[in-house]
Amino acid sequence: MREVRVDLGQDRSYRVIIGSGILWQLGRLTKDIKGQPKIMLISNPLVFDLYGAKAVDSLRGAGLTVNIALMPDGEEYKNLEQLQLMLDEAARVGLERSSVIIALGGGVVGDLAGFTASIYQRGIAFIQVPTTLLAQVDSSVGGKTAVNHPRGKNLIGTFHQPALVLIDTATLDTLREEEFRAGLGEVVKYGIILDQNLFQLLEKEAQGLLKREAEVVQEVVYRCVRIKSQIVAQDEKEAGLRMILNFGHTFAHSIEKLGHYKEIKHGQAVAIGTLMASILARNMGKIDSTQLSRIVHLFRCLGVSLKVPDYPAQMIYEGMLNDKKVKDEGLRIIVPQGIGGYDIIYNPAPDSIIEAIREAKDYPYGCRYEALND
Amino acid sequence: MREVRVDLGQDRSYRVIIGSGILWQLGRLTKDIKGQPKIMLISNPLVFDLYGAKAVDSLRGAGLTVNIALMPDGEEYKNLEQLQLMLDEAARVGLERSSVIIALGGGVVGDLAGFTASIYQRGIAFIQVPTTLLAQVDSSVGGKTAVNHPRGKNLIGTFHQPALVLIDTATLDTLREEEFRAGLGEVVKYGIILDQNLFQLLEKEAQGLLKREAEVVQEVVYRCVRIKSQIVAQDEKEAGLRMILNFGHTFAHSIEKLGHYKEIKHGQAVAIGTLMASILARNMGKIDSTQLSRIVHLFRCLGVSLKVPDYPAQMIYEGMLNDKKVKDEGLRIIVPQGIGGYDIIYNPAPDSIIEAIREAKDYPYGCRYEALND
Repeated sequence: MREVRVDLGQDRSYRVIIGSGILWQLGRLTKDIKGQPKIMLISNPLVFDLYGAKAVDSLRGAGLTVNIALMPDGEEYKNLEQLQLMLDEAARVGLERSSVIIALGGGVVGDLAGFTASIYQRGIAFIQVPTTLLAQVDSSVGGKTAVNHPRGKNLIGTFHQPALVLIDTATLDTLREEEFRAGLGEVVKYGIILDQNLFQLLEKEAQGLLKREAEVVQEVVYRCVRIKSQIVAQDEKEAGLRMILNFGHTFAHSIEKLGHYKEIKHGQAVAIGTLMASILARNMGKIDSTQLSRIVHLFRCLGVSLKVPDYPAQMIYEGMLNDKKVKDEGLRIIVPQGIGGYDIIYNPAPDSIIEAIREAKDYPYGCRYEALND
Repeated sequence: MREVRVDLGQDRSYRVIIGSGILWQLGRLTKDIKGQPKIMLISNPLVFDLYGAKAVDSLRGAGLTVNIALMPDGEEYKNLEQLQLMLDEAARVGLERSSVIIALGGGVVGDLAGFTASIYQRGIAFIQVPTTLLAQVDSSVGGKTAVNHPRGKNLIGTFHQPALVLIDTATLDTLREEEFRAGLGEVVKYGIILDQNLFQLLEKEAQGLLKREAEVVQEVVYRCVRIKSQIVAQDEKEAGLRMILNFGHTFAHSIEKLGHYKEIKHGQAVAIGTLMASILARNMGKIDSTQLSRIVHLFRCLGVSLKVPDYPAQMIYEGMLNDKKVKDEGLRIIVPQGIGGYDIIYNPAPDSIIEAIREAKDYPYGCRYEALND
């Protein structure tokens, strides 16, 4: 079992506890923080079928009163209607200011449950129990909550830090392969721009990670959480530094939008965006060709496809500009600076972006590293 | 023109500017804080007819883009449906993270607009321009936002401090008499438990205040805001101290509920609750009979009725216990300690409460002060 502390001052710091098979400790840990609260556990039927009984048993075993509220599975339910249903349920079961909402599930459950907790009685305590790789290494730590709006993803939400994050990496054993790989894109992201050692670990342990070996998964999740928590501690409300976590995302959002959020998974789009940003970095001399090859190769070893969908480069570029924030503040591209470092490119020349997109489409994936490991 | 600073540290401190006829300065003051933001001004048709043109002219005169969103007048519209309509409108007009929402109206408009601002793109800037006495002396300062839920008033909301509060006391000239008097109950509250000088000023200037003389109104509002801001600075999220502002409210909520929130106005119920708490204080020796008479007399001079509706004392008491927070944390009654001081009574003897309610019902309002001033 490993632990990371998210340092946000005396009142709001919290622990992230990471381990394989630690879900049974949820009840005790909840009592440690909040005494004898009334609980509302939010989940979806898929996750609840797998892990609900263990979570609820642990809470009830600790003498706590648990109410269960299930929402349908899927990003399309992360909306204001579901939020209202959860608020109605919280009011119906009589949650109090001292009560706790627990999210058991992936990013959708976490974002919606966190939002519910942040506005019920002007904010009650909230515990994250993430069960997808993406939620474990990214969304469960940092306090961003949200729902989607027809006019924008995550357009409505709050910053509301959890009181505890309990990450049982054993819950990843049942994760669908494509969901697991979607999370790997984010893991590689941390390595490229923030942690050379993590990148090397991933290169070394790619096979073990793909096989979801308990030790490897726990170590990788721990390292990602440690990076994320440091960033969050320095920039809780995304005023500056935290934007570097958008590495690859500006390209990715444009690609996802061109596919109407259906043709390509978010995780794969981020991986492709990461490739494009890395090619841009190579063209600017911020990484060399060997480093670029290592990045590409790592994605391939982890089974993350980098095949760019068949949209013209010009269209992908224009989609990047057609973003509210970009219009407001100008285009900013995060690029690697060596392996484990980053730089921010403000308003890059259009041609440099289009060229990077074109090269990504033609990139020779059969690079020299492949022969060594495969 | 007077000014109060709400001190919440470097990032979140803000100014409350109070003056008669200062609405025309809204544009300049908004630019001072936020540069060149896009604006959404939220109001209701009644207030907007009276003051909308002046506010919008000032903003547009300063070169700002203003979108207007009106909501119906009335507490019954402070709900999740209206919140969603405001969010839809914010998204439709393309508000950005750098944009500003301005509330022009009373407490309902302020609470709903503040809530909207607090969750749009995880929180954008918000300016209060309160136009009722209650909103000017109480709800516009302190960052509490909320909507009602069928299961509870203000059950859903956030803490989101405004970036500026602009109080034009001249807007009170058009306030309906009963609305004005509802605000006076809160004004007297501050005097009784927190500011002996304010209490004396109110005794001296009661007639001028009732006639809404500009100088008197401005001074009284300024003093109330100063008190409120000090309390908020010490206890932003209502963890403790801020609860003393509930003086009179525990009795009042029970009375309002017995009248199904229709038979008696909130302001009047608070005044009656204040009387009951003051009688309890007299019976406990925390104020003397002369001080109690001064309290009663001040309410009467200000034209605030203290007539208790015809509910049995026992029922009013039971209603006080039948409150979620009371059930959770026990009954706490705020009482005056002399004029300008307070004490908190934890779990008072039932008989002492019932006796105070009975005495309030029978209180001889024709006290000796009446002859002196009327």
